[in-house]
Amino acid sequence: MVTHSSGNHAAALAWAAAATGRSAHIVMPSNAPVVKRCAVEGYGAKITLCEPTDEARARGASEVCAATGGALVHPSNDPQIIAGQGTVGLELVEQGMETWPAEGGLECIVVPIGGGGLTGGVAVAAKGLSGGSLTVVAAEPELADDACRSKALGAIQGHRDGKNPTTIADGLKTLLGSNTFPLIRDCVDDIITVSEADIAAATRLVWERMKLAIEPSAGVGVAAVMSPAFRSRHGDKKRVGVVLCGGNADLPKLLGILSTAAPAPSGCVLEEEQA
Amino acid sequence: MVTHSSGNHAAALAWAAAATGRSAHIVMPSNAPVVKRCAVEGYGAKITLCEPTDEARARGASEVCAATGGALVHPSNDPQIIAGQGTVGLELVEQGMETWPAEGGLECIVVPIGGGGLTGGVAVAAKGLSGGSLTVVAAEPELADDACRSKALGAIQGHRDGKNPTTIADGLKTLLGSNTFPLIRDCVDDIITVSEADIAAATRLVWERMKLAIEPSAGVGVAAVMSPAFRSRHGDKKRVGVVLCGGNADLPKLLGILSTAAPAPSGCVLEEEQA
Repeated sequence: MVTHSSGNHAAALAWAAAATGRSAHIVMPSNAPVVKRCAVEGYGAKITLCEPTDEARARGASEVCAATGGALVHPSNDPQIIAGQGTVGLELVEQGMETWPAEGGLECIVVPIGGGGLTGGVAVAAKGLSGGSLTVVAAEPELADDACRSKALGAIQGHRDGKNPTTIADGLKTLLGSNTFPLIRDCVDDIITVSEADIAAATRLVWERMKLAIEPSAGVGVAAVMSPAFRSRHGDKKRVGVVLCGGNADLPKLLGILSTAAPAPSGCVLEEEQA
Repeated sequence: MVTHSSGNHAAALAWAAAATGRSAHIVMPSNAPVVKRCAVEGYGAKITLCEPTDEARARGASEVCAATGGALVHPSNDPQIIAGQGTVGLELVEQGMETWPAEGGLECIVVPIGGGGLTGGVAVAAKGLSGGSLTVVAAEPELADDACRSKALGAIQGHRDGKNPTTIADGLKTLLGSNTFPLIRDCVDDIITVSEADIAAATRLVWERMKLAIEPSAGVGVAAVMSPAFRSRHGDKKRVGVVLCGGNADLPKLLGILSTAAPAPSGCVLEEEQA
């Protein structure tokens, strides 16, 4: 089994390969967080580093496939991966029904979007299980808003100016693919983009108040729910599920980000932390 | 309601006061993490700062009680607080029974110890519910091992050389009290002390692999379970519950601690993070 991934999919594939007695080869960008590389190696996979661009990742994976005879398992555009990631939506809908049986469960699901595999799978599951009534909102960094532009223009768009995005949400830099774009186009109701400052503040809020060590990519969904855009466009939805899509945070880098992030909106000024 | 606390009890009391329409006054050491102060203020409590010693905290609380007419709710030595914290043990025992019904639930509970309120309450609950068969192990920083020495000597001991401990587990610096010591003496089977390096490594492991943003005080219990002492003295116990006793981590401070902590034991060297 071969894939290219900056982390979460790589760790999942490495784990799945080990569990089924296969070997896994992972092509990772050279700037991937060390913690992700350690997790992948800890699960027994072999890592090949490449330049941190979509093209280099795809090329590297092809080369490893040719050299090892392994099958490519794309991190987002593979239909079976999309279906597997869609089980997140299945679980969320089921949990919503258990939590609010009288009200009919969740009204809205918010999910961060990168390559669109998780979002597409969740959207298909949520729409299918709810008869189309559940609203699905994707959340994306402003600095990597290709999915938002793709949906608006009706065709897959690349990164702005063709440049690799610099967002702290490093798991959401991937572009939509041929299989994920139609799902985003047809099953996602809205895409909300959020600033780097809002991503950092939301990530910090989840760490400090929910005690969950999420990575900034997961904070993107929380930032979207807290945004004025969500309030004005979906403020009538009271039962909202948010997918926290990963926790492979590079601690030193992340703590640097969070220590300058806006504090939780409690009226308390954190000036001492910025000294 | 008045108390002195470096954080977790303060936040709980502030929340409880707000929920019941009372006002809360919290005496906090001047070096308490800003994140804890913010949480407490966010819940509507009024903070009075004091010197970071047990004596100054107790004196400050007495003064605030006199000035406000409020009742002191001690963070660890109050019987009702001990009983309330003991519900953690109740929940753990119940979850153990649900998880391993055929095997009879948990065999051992490990809980970090500071003032002994949480540990005493959990120990009483665990012993009472299991007919005495469940083993209760307290976990303590080597640098603040007053409970370990108190239990060994049969009387409450102060800090070594009378000095305020410098452990990173800042929630475990409190000494045992008149109500908690008898519970630790009679209902806790063993106390294991752990080094600062082991606390940091365990905290990092929980953050990176369990994705839980615990504070170092909570890492003390995990460090104890992973210690050679636990293996040699309690290695026959397979169903072990560990209390993660708090997540009020001061993020910038944790940066320094965790970035130099030993990585998860996966064989992968994290030298890049230390650069």
